[in-house]
Parts: sequence; structure tokens; C-alpha cells
Amino acid sequence: MSVIPNSADYVRLIRSGDTRLMTRALARLDDVQIAALIDPLEAREQDSILHLLAIERRSEVLASMRYEVAAQVIGRLAPEEAARLLGNLESDDVADILGQIDKEQLRPILARLDDADAKELEELLAYPEDSAGGIMSLDVARIHEDVTIAEATRMLQQESEKLPGSVFYIYVVDEQERLVGVVSLRKLVISKPDQPIHAIMETELVYVSVETHQEKVAELASRYDLVAIPVVDDQRRLLGAVTIDDIVDVLREEATEDILKMAGAGGELVGTRGFRASFRARMPWLLTSACGGLVVAVSLKGFEESLSVVPALALFMPVVAGMGGNVGTQSSTIMVRGLAVGFVETSRFGSLVLREVGLGATMGVIYGAGIALLAPLVGATSRDPLGLGLVIMFGMIGSMMIAATVGAAVPLLLHRLSIDPAVATGPFVTTSVDILGLLFYFWLATMLLQVPL
Amino acid sequence: MSVIPNSADYVRLIRSGDTRLMTRALARLDDVQIAALIDPLEAREQDSILHLLAIERRSEVLASMRYEVAAQVIGRLAPEEAARLLGNLESDDVADILGQIDKEQLRPILARLDDADAKELEELLAYPEDSAGGIMSLDVARIHEDVTIAEATRMLQQESEKLPGSVFYIYVVDEQERLVGVVSLRKLVISKPDQPIHAIMETELVYVSVETHQEKVAELASRYDLVAIPVVDDQRRLLGAVTIDDIVDVLREEATEDILKMAGAGGELVGTRGFRASFRARMPWLLTSACGGLVVAVSLKGFEESLSVVPALALFMPVVAGMGGNVGTQSSTIMVRGLAVGFVETSRFGSLVLREVGLGATMGVIYGAGIALLAPLVGATSRDPLGLGLVIMFGMIGSMMIAATVGAAVPLLLHRLSIDPAVATGPFVTTSVDILGLLFYFWLATMLLQVPL
Repeated sequence: MSVIPNSADYVRLIRSGDTRLMTRALARLDDVQIAALIDPLEAREQDSILHLLAIERRSEVLASMRYEVAAQVIGRLAPEEAARLLGNLESDDVADILGQIDKEQLRPILARLDDADAKELEELLAYPEDSAGGIMSLDVARIHEDVTIAEATRMLQQESEKLPGSVFYIYVVDEQERLVGVVSLRKLVISKPDQPIHAIMETELVYVSVETHQEKVAELASRYDLVAIPVVDDQRRLLGAVTIDDIVDVLREEATEDILKMAGAGGELVGTRGFRASFRARMPWLLTSACGGLVVAVSLKGFEESLSVVPALALFMPVVAGMGGNVGTQSSTIMVRGLAVGFVETSRFGSLVLREVGLGATMGVIYGAGIALLAPLVGATSRDPLGLGLVIMFGMIGSMMIAATVGAAVPLLLHRLSIDPAVATGPFVTTSVDILGLLFYFWLATMLLQVPL
Repeated sequence: MSVIPNSADYVRLIRSGDTRLMTRALARLDDVQIAALIDPLEAREQDSILHLLAIERRSEVLASMRYEVAAQVIGRLAPEEAARLLGNLESDDVADILGQIDKEQLRPILARLDDADAKELEELLAYPEDSAGGIMSLDVARIHEDVTIAEATRMLQQESEKLPGSVFYIYVVDEQERLVGVVSLRKLVISKPDQPIHAIMETELVYVSVETHQEKVAELASRYDLVAIPVVDDQRRLLGAVTIDDIVDVLREEATEDILKMAGAGGELVGTRGFRASFRARMPWLLTSACGGLVVAVSLKGFEESLSVVPALALFMPVVAGMGGNVGTQSSTIMVRGLAVGFVETSRFGSLVLREVGLGATMGVIYGAGIALLAPLVGATSRDPLGLGLVIMFGMIGSMMIAATVGAAVPLLLHRLSIDPAVATGPFVTTSVDILGLLFYFWLATMLLQVPL
């Protein structure tokens, strides 16, 4: 059974600095295992392990690493060395890695690559990083529609050196290089060799334009169960194909991006590894919360008198805000992920939000009543215990209803406005619940308790 | 260019109830487009659209739907009808769908399927839903090691009816049906037909045991860039293969699970669609927060006197707790996702947590000082404005450091204990920050301000 090795033992070995033992241990692992092992390590350790490997192997390991991490490794090398390592890899892998590197670092590396390689790469890197063009491979098996299956097989044999390891489809083009059909290798193998290729090709094509966003490409591939999607220009001329390994990377990357964005923790995991990079990624998102906190302070200022008369009100502020915050996070998370996966039907805005509000109210009644009943037991004293209980209960119901509304409505609205609904939904929702929920709670207090405004 | 159709127009059409127009619109869409269209709709609408389709097409659309949703559709049908629809599909698709259905509903459907199909399905359904066995397909191309390439090709041609549409590898077995090698179709096409298969087969095999967790299977496939992974029993006998479409589903499902779990919103998105199901999924996770809220109320009880003397302290409770909560969410999100993707090296517990604490402290100093300086401007009054400022500043620093520590340490500890680190990290982190952060804030107040304890 294949396994990604448990890193702990190796990490201990690396830190011991015993290079002879380490080299022997590395010889027992394959390229992918080494890549998985060094992905999460610190820069210094990554470099020292890579240096124990022969140059060809180093390239292979690099290609198997998460490309965001591989880009950091490449960024630490001299341009000559970087070009030497990248020269052994396939163009789309190199483009993935170099797409993560600064422009100033890129130029000297490109200058040291093969002219043909560099030209291909510049072509790929010209497309936006998150478009079909940015992730496609240029090495596709293409064949003209009038050849026979036997000829097609012969051509595949001749070009086998040039083609990447993972060819599963042959794309059929006309004289203008326009995509007209696709033949799976399976179909090629099981068909009679003397037929023309157009007799067996599939003409109901799934393809994307070079500008298509990678998220759409991944959605199509997963919906149509394809292991590669052809990429065409505006004349439908075949440019390349996005293969399943890149699609899997996209799915992982987009899920990570959504998760981090919702928490206001940047968009890329690898960007949060260094102290300074993490600081830059996270610092700005706390601003919402900080400003919100000041707004809360100002808003509650008017209730200072109530607080000094019934200080017990303050004791239940955290539970009112906290329960609201959690309900809001639940609602917004379900909406954001539902939108990403295609489980949420956006034209149903009203009924989706209403359902959430209903849920917020139901859970609010249950927890609100529970907490209110327990309030006297935990020692919350007031001259008007019934009033305080009602304020706590209805305060929680209100806060949880507000939270559910904001949590559900904000992602749906952002999606309608074609803004990524994941953007810092978390901090935004908790902050607005703090403001609105607590204001409602204190307003209730002035209404239901005999306290001055 | 291929697109998943925009649902809004169709949804309007569906709701208008004009079946003639709807039938015409559906004729213009392919199976996958219809599936994507109806996935997010309500039960009633899904059923009415499926009923407009011919029975064969209905099966195809069902196979293209998210299988969690397809299971709900099947669950609403009579067993005869369900069996008729499922009878046209491949065994692993059927197993995916039926794996989501209750045992009581399952039996009558299985009883109405083909004997051979039912036997295969019972075999597949016997494996845990989230194991390699639970997601594998039984239809694999298998060949004995002593046949020639020409013979292998002929066998493929003869069995082409039985094999699924997406065969990319041929698995080579010995007389005991033990897996000994793999040949890609590409290799088969480009090799000379008179060679024996063992001359061209790859013997460095990546395979999984039938018990392997689906998350591990997906990790291996994505690390090794494979479009299918063979599944073996404990004798290494070939049982089936997990194909890339299922691996893509697993990646999506696991990301969804992590996101929802962190927010304390259940584990399955489709489970949160109905009101009652959503209530059951979300209600229990709020208990942490509710109990935490009571603990906060009890803990702060001792500071009631301080509050009545300096009610301004209450105004800044939300920002102290809120900023802490957000920092904690950032830290825990980065750890949970980093662990899932393999970016976090767990043996480095101490340094990872220390880094987070440092980040929390740095961001705490900046925002704490900022809020403290603005405090007098927003009208926070106290007999000791300097003291209040210091309490706010150090309170925020403390709360943010506590949050970063809890947020980073909890997921790492859970991972070490082999507990899924995503489990309700969100509610847990915000609640403990509420308790610890606010206690620290009020303790500071009693130390730095002239207030009674």
C-alpha cells in the first residue's frame, strides 16, 4: 500500500544534521514522497534536503511539490541554478511555478532557459494566472480529421517523446487548426484501424476559452467527468488543454482561498507561513472588527447609565453577542460554500434568507429561554429579575435573528453583485452582529427595565 | 465554449409551470447542464423537471447530479421506479448514490435490481462510505501478465461494452489475481504489439487498501498525478479502482466538511437544506457557545462592582472579545487548512504556536494602542482616563495573544490525538477567547484602576 511517509522521523533526522544517514533515507523514498515530506518544512531545511539529491531528481521532486512552495524554493536559487532545474520539467509545471514568482526574479531565469522553452513560457505566463490559459499545457496530441486510426496511432508513436506522460485524449482539428472533435485513447484502441478518425470522434465537445476562469474550468471538468479540457482561442483554434492534475490543484486552491478569506486570513496558505507575510495578510482584515468595536463603544455610550444601574446587563453581553456571532457564521458559511459548490439557487434570495431568519429565531427562543432561566442561578441580580430575564431572552432571540439575516443576506448579495462572497465574511458578520445585536439588547433593557436612557 | 447555464431564466420558466416550453428548453441542454440546473432547486421542482425527461435521459441526468442530491431524489421515488432509474447506471455511481440512503429505504430498491447488479452493490455498500472500498468502481481493465500487447488490445476490444467510459490504465495481475503492474493506454498504443505486457508495464505501483480513508486516496492521487488508483485486498489481489471523478468529489466533499465543521454547521451541505435538518445540524454546536456564555457571566459576576463604578469598561468588552475572536479564527483556520493540505509540519508544535502568539501580540499592540487612543474621543469617560486607556490596550493585547494561542494550539493538539482538527474549532475558539480574554481584561481593570474587586 502506498503511503505519504510520516514526517516526524525524517524531520528529526534532518535536524540531527547527519547527511549520510539522510541520503540513505532519501534513497528509499520516491520523488512524490520526498516532495510531500519537504513541503511543510522551513526554507533552510528544504534547501538542505534538495541539495542531497542529484540534479535530475531535484527537478522531479520540485515538480511534485505544491507549486506555491516550489516557487519559493526557486526564488531562493541563483537564476542559472533555477533555469537548470526548470529546464527538465514540462511547460505547464514550469508555468505554474514561475507564475508565483516576482517579475524581477522571472526575467533572469527566462533569459537562461532554452529559447524554445522560454518562448512557450512567456506565452503561458502572458495569460492571467487564474485563467484557462494560465494553467493549460501546450503539449497536446492533435491530429487532422482526415487521417485514419492507423495513421493516428503511428503519429502518436512517433511523437511519444514530445507528449506528456498523461495523454488521454486526442484532439481532432480541421485545416484552420480549429477544434472539431475528440477521441479518447480507449476509443482509439478498440476501433478498427482502417477507419478515418472523424468516423469515431466525439463531436459534442466540451471546451473552454483561453480567458475562462480556472474555477469554471474545474467546475466543467468535474461536472462532465473529464480528465482534460481543450482550450481554444476566439476562432476556436486549439491552443492547449487543462489536465486533471491542474484541475485538482485548482479545486484545492479555491477551497483554501474560500476558507482563508472567510476568516479574514488572506487568500493563500503559503503566504501565511512567514511572520511578516502572515502579518500583512491578516492585519488589514482586523480593521473591520476594530472599527466595529469603536462603533459599538460609541453606540453603547448612551446606555452607560443603564449599565451603572443594572451592571448585570454587562454580564450577558458576551453571550448575546457570541451566540449571534456563531449563528451568523453558520449561516454565512452555508451560503458561501453552497454558492461555491452549486447547492444554492440564488434567484431564491427571499426564501433562503427567510429560512435562515426562522432558524435563528427558533434557536434563539430555545437558547434564549434556557440562558434566561439559568440567569438567576448564576447570580445575576437585579431589582427586576423577571425583566432582566426577558431582556436576556429577547435580546438573544433578536441577536440571533439579526445574525442569521446578515449572515445569509451578505453572501447572496455579494454573489449577485459578482463580488466573491467569501471576502472576509467572518469578521464582517461578527462585527455587525456585535453592533446591531447589542444595540437591540440595550434598547430592550431601557424598554423593559426601569432604567434611565 | 461550454457553459453551465445560468439558472435564473430556467427557474422562472419552471415556476411558470409551462411544461411545453420547459420541455423544449430542456431539449437544448445536455445531461450535465440539466443536472447542474436542478441540483440547487427544491424537491418539488426537481421532481417535476425529471418527469419531463425520457427514462433513459432521467438516469443520465441523475448520474450527473451531485450524488448527495441524487440520493434525495431517489429517496422520494417508489422502489420500482428507483431501481429502474439506477439499473442504467455504472455500479460505482449507484453505490455513491445509494450510500446516502437509509437502510430501510435501501433494501426494497436492491431487491428490485438485477441480481448481478444487486450483488455487486451489496459488496460495495458493505465498505465504509468514506473508504477506498466505498468509492471504488469494480469495472476495471485487468489482464494477465503473460499476454502480449496485441492480445491485450483484442481483449479490450471484446470487453469494450462492459468497461466504463473512462478507462485510462490496464492493471496487470498474476495467476493469484495479485496486482503486479500497470500499463497506461498511451503506453499500449505506442508500443510494439508483439511484446509481452510485462515488458512495458510499470511495476512501481501506487495502490491503496480497500480500507484506506478516501482523504488519503485523494491525497495520493493528487500527489502522484494519477487519474485512477487501484484498490487491493490484504493479499494484494485487485478488487477495483478509484477513478478521478470520485477523487474530485472527495476533495470537494472534504473541503466542504472542513468548512462547515469549523463553523459548527454540521458536516454535509445538503443536510442543511431543509429547515429541520439544518436545525438538527446546527443546534448542538451552539451549546459550546451558550455554556461558555454562562461561564463568562459567572466569571464576570465578581467584577460587577467595578462595572458599576466604571461603566465605560463595558463599552469596550465587545471590541476586546471581538478582536480576540477574529485573531483566534485566523490562527485556527490557517492551522486546520494547513494540516489538511500538508503545509503544516506538526512536529514543530512549539514554534508554530509561538509564531502565532507573536503575531497576536504584534497585532494586539497596534490595534490596542489605536483603540485606547481613540477611547476618549468616542466619549469613554472615567475618573482615570490614562488607566482606562491602559486597561483597554493591554486587555486587547492579552485577549489577542490568548486567542492566537488557543487558535493555533487546539487544532495542532487535536491532530496529534488523531481527532479531526476541524471539529467546531470556530465556536470553541471564540468561546474560550470570550471567557479568558474578558477575565484578563477585568482583572487588569481591578489592578490598574481604583475599583473594588
